[in-house]
Amino acid sequence: MAADFELTFLGTGTSVGVPVIGCECAVCRSDDPRNHRGRSSIHLRAGDTSLLVDAGPDLREQALRENLRRIDAVLFTHGHLDHVAGFDELRAFCWHRDTPLPMHGSRETLDTLRRMFGWAFDAANTYQGYVKPGPVEIDGPFHYGDLRISPLPVEHGRVDTMGFLFEAPGEPPVAYLPDVKRIPPDTLATLRNVDILIIDALRPDTHPTHMSVGEALAAIEEVGAASAWLTHLGHDNDHAALESTLPPNIRVAHDGLRIGG
Amino acid sequence: MAADFELTFLGTGTSVGVPVIGCECAVCRSDDPRNHRGRSSIHLRAGDTSLLVDAGPDLREQALRENLRRIDAVLFTHGHLDHVAGFDELRAFCWHRDTPLPMHGSRETLDTLRRMFGWAFDAANTYQGYVKPGPVEIDGPFHYGDLRISPLPVEHGRVDTMGFLFEAPGEPPVAYLPDVKRIPPDTLATLRNVDILIIDALRPDTHPTHMSVGEALAAIEEVGAASAWLTHLGHDNDHAALESTLPPNIRVAHDGLRIGG
Repeated sequence: MAADFELTFLGTGTSVGVPVIGCECAVCRSDDPRNHRGRSSIHLRAGDTSLLVDAGPDLREQALRENLRRIDAVLFTHGHLDHVAGFDELRAFCWHRDTPLPMHGSRETLDTLRRMFGWAFDAANTYQGYVKPGPVEIDGPFHYGDLRISPLPVEHGRVDTMGFLFEAPGEPPVAYLPDVKRIPPDTLATLRNVDILIIDALRPDTHPTHMSVGEALAAIEEVGAASAWLTHLGHDNDHAALESTLPPNIRVAHDGLRIGG
Repeated sequence: MAADFELTFLGTGTSVGVPVIGCECAVCRSDDPRNHRGRSSIHLRAGDTSLLVDAGPDLREQALRENLRRIDAVLFTHGHLDHVAGFDELRAFCWHRDTPLPMHGSRETLDTLRRMFGWAFDAANTYQGYVKPGPVEIDGPFHYGDLRISPLPVEHGRVDTMGFLFEAPGEPPVAYLPDVKRIPPDTLATLRNVDILIIDALRPDTHPTHMSVGEALAAIEEVGAASAWLTHLGHDNDHAALESTLPPNIRVAHDGLRIGG
């Protein structure tokens, strides 16, 4: 990829992160920093555009670690807490703006944000230190500069979530699907032969709302992705052990990993 | 204090923590680990009882750092995000219980939790991995074992918050007031001559909803506290510089500090 496109994995963990509080398993006690996983989120830089996907509970720590100082918009995959609980950390990205911070999501996700963080959406939210959200309902592809972003509706158990396809001129397209159990046909068609697929692979065993490692590998093959990164990983996945079982075009993501740049 | 009473400062920071995202000030760039402050919270161990006060956004990191594995109850001071955003991290403390996790707070605070995390309070919340809250409205002093806990209503700008007075047999009483602008007369009477007062001292300058350092020092004197710790500190407070200005019975708290034990 060219120097003007960079994707950073802010977090690659499942809803409780790794290590899990109170857990003594080998992965939770591991010295391998790639087994320390905050909640899943990515940051994208495309030219002058700086985008955050999801605002999970580890956002402050992730932003400090990666020295994020400016964000032009937040894209939300869905309203589960491991993707929105860091909403209030976004205030630091509102202080230097004259306009609300665009927050893109499905109607359902934006409704969840309004219900949880009602004060921020209220007309009475005039205190300059607070988050100033600019909700934008996603109803199709949209652009930031030259970057085209297409929503990828997928099924996450009984909840619909939205992955995103990022297409920048001269760059290999990248798709991000952190919370998915099943890819419906329309989204499968959009994804066909994508260059880079980042996909949920919670654990070796099946789970009602997330893809297992085996299901993720099957999806990567069905999509025909040229390469793939596994994310949203639980403590049943040891980084090195999991990666040793994968074909060379499929890798295991870890917090702080950058692609491109 | 005896070995069966231990108070740990899980976090001593203000709502955005220190360092502040994007800030270049000397405190935010400081190498002194005492200037790295997660959001304010304490843990109390009294005999066999393990209590958490507040569940802020840094709870997972704080619990891992302090190796917290069991909590008998959570006491909430109020419903602001820097004190409740870690609600979902409490699931790890519910997995090994047969009963809901008691959550003590004012009616207003419990209403905020129900509004933000409605799914957890819903009768349909039967999935074993989720937080199982047992809300308990505070209407006066209550006990866990020999530990007596008295609510300390205080004013935090336009919001009422609740501090707590902890009294264990044979131990010096400890009061915790992390978010306070004014102590009303009844609470002042309860606090009179307390041995250890832990109190909000946001910054040197005045603030509409928090005590400044000067206001905290005046309150400590008015209460007649034998000793005090300053907490809920912003990036205008350098640990060493602030402590150098204080009388010997008043100290600056920091994340990970333990009293007693």
